[in-house]
Amino acid sequence: MAATVHTLRRDASAQPGSKAALERMQALVADDLGAVNQIILDRMQSPVALIPELAGHLIASGGKRLRPMLTLACATMLGYAGTRHHKLAACVEFIHTATLLHDDVVDGSGLRRGRKTANILWGNQPSVLVGDFLFSRSFELMVEDGSLRVLKILSRASAVIAQGEVQQLTTAHDLTCTEDKYLEVITSKTAVLFAAACQIAGVVAESPATVEASLEAYGRNLGIAFQLVDDAMDYASDAATMGKDAGDDFREGKLTLPVILAYARGSADERTFWERTIGRLKQEDGDLARAMALASASGAVTDTLARARHYGAKAKDALGAMTDGAAKSILLDTVDFAVARAF
Amino acid sequence: MAATVHTLRRDASAQPGSKAALERMQALVADDLGAVNQIILDRMQSPVALIPELAGHLIASGGKRLRPMLTLACATMLGYAGTRHHKLAACVEFIHTATLLHDDVVDGSGLRRGRKTANILWGNQPSVLVGDFLFSRSFELMVEDGSLRVLKILSRASAVIAQGEVQQLTTAHDLTCTEDKYLEVITSKTAVLFAAACQIAGVVAESPATVEASLEAYGRNLGIAFQLVDDAMDYASDAATMGKDAGDDFREGKLTLPVILAYARGSADERTFWERTIGRLKQEDGDLARAMALASASGAVTDTLARARHYGAKAKDALGAMTDGAAKSILLDTVDFAVARAF
Repeated sequence: MAATVHTLRRDASAQPGSKAALERMQALVADDLGAVNQIILDRMQSPVALIPELAGHLIASGGKRLRPMLTLACATMLGYAGTRHHKLAACVEFIHTATLLHDDVVDGSGLRRGRKTANILWGNQPSVLVGDFLFSRSFELMVEDGSLRVLKILSRASAVIAQGEVQQLTTAHDLTCTEDKYLEVITSKTAVLFAAACQIAGVVAESPATVEASLEAYGRNLGIAFQLVDDAMDYASDAATMGKDAGDDFREGKLTLPVILAYARGSADERTFWERTIGRLKQEDGDLARAMALASASGAVTDTLARARHYGAKAKDALGAMTDGAAKSILLDTVDFAVARAF
Repeated sequence: MAATVHTLRRDASAQPGSKAALERMQALVADDLGAVNQIILDRMQSPVALIPELAGHLIASGGKRLRPMLTLACATMLGYAGTRHHKLAACVEFIHTATLLHDDVVDGSGLRRGRKTANILWGNQPSVLVGDFLFSRSFELMVEDGSLRVLKILSRASAVIAQGEVQQLTTAHDLTCTEDKYLEVITSKTAVLFAAACQIAGVVAESPATVEASLEAYGRNLGIAFQLVDDAMDYASDAATMGKDAGDDFREGKLTLPVILAYARGSADERTFWERTIGRLKQEDGDLARAMALASASGAVTDTLARARHYGAKAKDALGAMTDGAAKSILLDTVDFAVARAF
């Protein structure tokens, strides 16, 4: 059959509000982010030159610092006037970077943010170990801050992330994976760190528990929406525009919602296709194109994006009780940005 | 040339004092260690079944729990009567286990403690991720204990371990690596965790800084001695008796002190041999036997063990100011045990 590939709109000018949201967030936290970047650069140093070299490749590779920006923007929304969140935002980015390094080893990925991955350039060995280093360094920074509450939130998040990654491995080729199970996995591996990044702003601002809970819910739902869009794009996009290998998830036989939906809705012949390509990872030329066509024609991509909008709506409502203002407005618009396009 | 392999004495009955040291330590801390083992079992659980399955394989594989026993024995020596050290000793073991999982991936090891490694049985991917999980879980446990000082000691230790592992990678095939550089590597990758395990006993016992420093020095020097013996045994032993692949270091082209010494003392022909086998990792049948013979004939193995005794002596002197008693006597004898044979 002809490969009709669903394409997401990614022309920024077509989504001025969304594009503007990210720029407005960057403007809102520009000074704070400068301080965070300085801490990141300072604290990834080591007498062992390979560590800053390898870590710097990923850290300087154009990641948008979305997670630390969330910490900064949430703190701004709460009127926090101190500087503790700088170090803690750097912790969040270190944890994120460590998981990316390990993910790329585990997935055997070759491209991230449009550049060769560290595991391709330096090999798996230093990628694993530099990830360990950044992870440890993150805890050193947290200890310097001295908040046991922050330490609790971020150590729990780290454990849950690792658990989610293992769970994803075990469900990778399993076409019987349910949508709920998939949601558990992406909540653990992605959304928990978004949630923690937002929640710790409440801790430094000494907000009441209800505010912390709101921030946690905002971050968690935003993270789920973010991951759903990312997974949809893998079946609807190309490497040049999204800065990662399109079709990566398919080639790795990863169970994501587009596949779960396309499989559930598929004909016997289509199910056989998914069982061969994802279930047994026997792939040949043309399979990726057919997978993209099936994911599109079945509505699986469109409906994955609809699910993302559902979680996006929950994220926005979670901020309902927060004080209105520029920061809140930007955090709300950020949800639209996350839902409309991947970062 | 004929392969005359230096063999270490490993008949326990030939070293009654040393063998007895470990048994006496086990008896001294038996109740505490039971509590630690229970915490380890409880806290490696996860709804994701692969995590306890994989972690349990390594954790239950007959490791001697040396590091947690050091925490327990040091606390006993200080007269500590509480139970905080149970959780913290479990933290130390989790960190150790996490690094073993990652080490085996990085080294591609197939055998540990006489059993197949997790990376062989389950693959590299879950080994990396379960390592991350255990590492995160360790920090969760520390946060429950709530001592920022312990968190500082162990987060620093973790960062230094990772740094040491990266440094070892970069020096792996480099025959110009000096003995001092090698000492830096093993101090980071091995001795720092021994030191931390001992030092945190001083923290829970609320000992003065001088006592903490003594415990740190004891652990660090013991750890260096321990690693030196381990490295010597790789050129002098066999897998059946030591529970790891003899010749592993050689096959991986790892620069360890036996090689550094044998190379420095070698003839032009012998240096060419080391440059080919370690420097360029071009190995053929018979090379391991020749390497063992050269390491033995040059005195490199014997002198590596002599260096180990030097650090062992420093470890003992570090406890000079501690109160005499059963625990101290056992900690002193443990040094002899570490120097005389690998654990």
